[in-house]
Amino acid sequence: MVTKNSKNKKPAGLVIVYTGEGKGKTTAAIGLAIRAAGWNKKIAIIQFIKGFKEIGEWKFFKDIKQIDIYQTLESKSAAMGLPDDKHKLSCIKSLEILRKLISNNKHDILILDEINNAIFYDLVEAGEIIKILDSRPAGQTIVFTGRNAPHEIIKIADLVTEMKNIKHPYDIGIQAKRGIDY
Amino acid sequence: MVTKNSKNKKPAGLVIVYTGEGKGKTTAAIGLAIRAAGWNKKIAIIQFIKGFKEIGEWKFFKDIKQIDIYQTLESKSAAMGLPDDKHKLSCIKSLEILRKLISNNKHDILILDEINNAIFYDLVEAGEIIKILDSRPAGQTIVFTGRNAPHEIIKIADLVTEMKNIKHPYDIGIQAKRGIDY
Repeated sequence: MVTKNSKNKKPAGLVIVYTGEGKGKTTAAIGLAIRAAGWNKKIAIIQFIKGFKEIGEWKFFKDIKQIDIYQTLESKSAAMGLPDDKHKLSCIKSLEILRKLISNNKHDILILDEINNAIFYDLVEAGEIIKILDSRPAGQTIVFTGRNAPHEIIKIADLVTEMKNIKHPYDIGIQAKRGIDY
Repeated sequence: MVTKNSKNKKPAGLVIVYTGEGKGKTTAAIGLAIRAAGWNKKIAIIQFIKGFKEIGEWKFFKDIKQIDIYQTLESKSAAMGLPDDKHKLSCIKSLEILRKLISNNKHDILILDEINNAIFYDLVEAGEIIKILDSRPAGQTIVFTGRNAPHEIIKIADLVTEMKNIKHPYDIGIQAKRGIDY
């Protein structure tokens, strides 16, 4: 994606998308944050339509100084349920955070966790996101996660991986496990 | 996978496989380690046929007390090159570490990074791995990463995700980036 500032000497940041029905999308984004933190980069994660803090990444990242993690929803479970006004409001707040982070220019990587689904559910417009990202600093990498990545996002992306479900423990009745699934 | 000790009350650990040509396999395993560490679990990562320490996960994990990371190869680059005797020897050492870790029973999760490829290149036998894992403590989860996951491993796995390459920056001439690809 050619960003507004990419005419400068600095290398343009990538747009990375992890999508598909299989496990490993948010997990890969967390791994990417760790790799970058290992190189002393600064990372922000905005978790769209997630408001549950009893999750491994929240617990771990709150003590890591190079990684900032945000949620704008309050939720008593990891399940999203049907999208409603509180999700919509949360997405508006998440976009405000995104705008602020881009304007502050303190992060090398911004991870927009579950945003693909937020777009899919009409809680956020792909065009609006693209417009916001268009003004980002050159060199800033953006990661989109979630099922149902919209074609507008695939189009501007440099790297797209589809996580394909080959075999899934829920299929044989094994439930989500703490420290693995969340 | 039914382990030897899984007749006990403790839940049987999962066998998870991240495979495929797309990006995000080791990255997802790193993310899984972080989630688990967030829940105060203990994780070991054995990097098969990798001997390069100028990688984000090595730099980050060496300071994290819940996560142990091992390499048994010395290498001056991230590229593997053609498999040879030093890879074979490194795999023998890696299996020794695996046996020791299983016998010590101090980890909730063992990540066997790139092992699928090590099996594919005949550096390790799938049957030998399965035999070793068969004696592991109940509740211990094993993660296999790497392209070309062999059918024997797919068969015993509870969760298999194929990372499918939809769009890749190398395709358009963008090179591997520090803090993202390694």
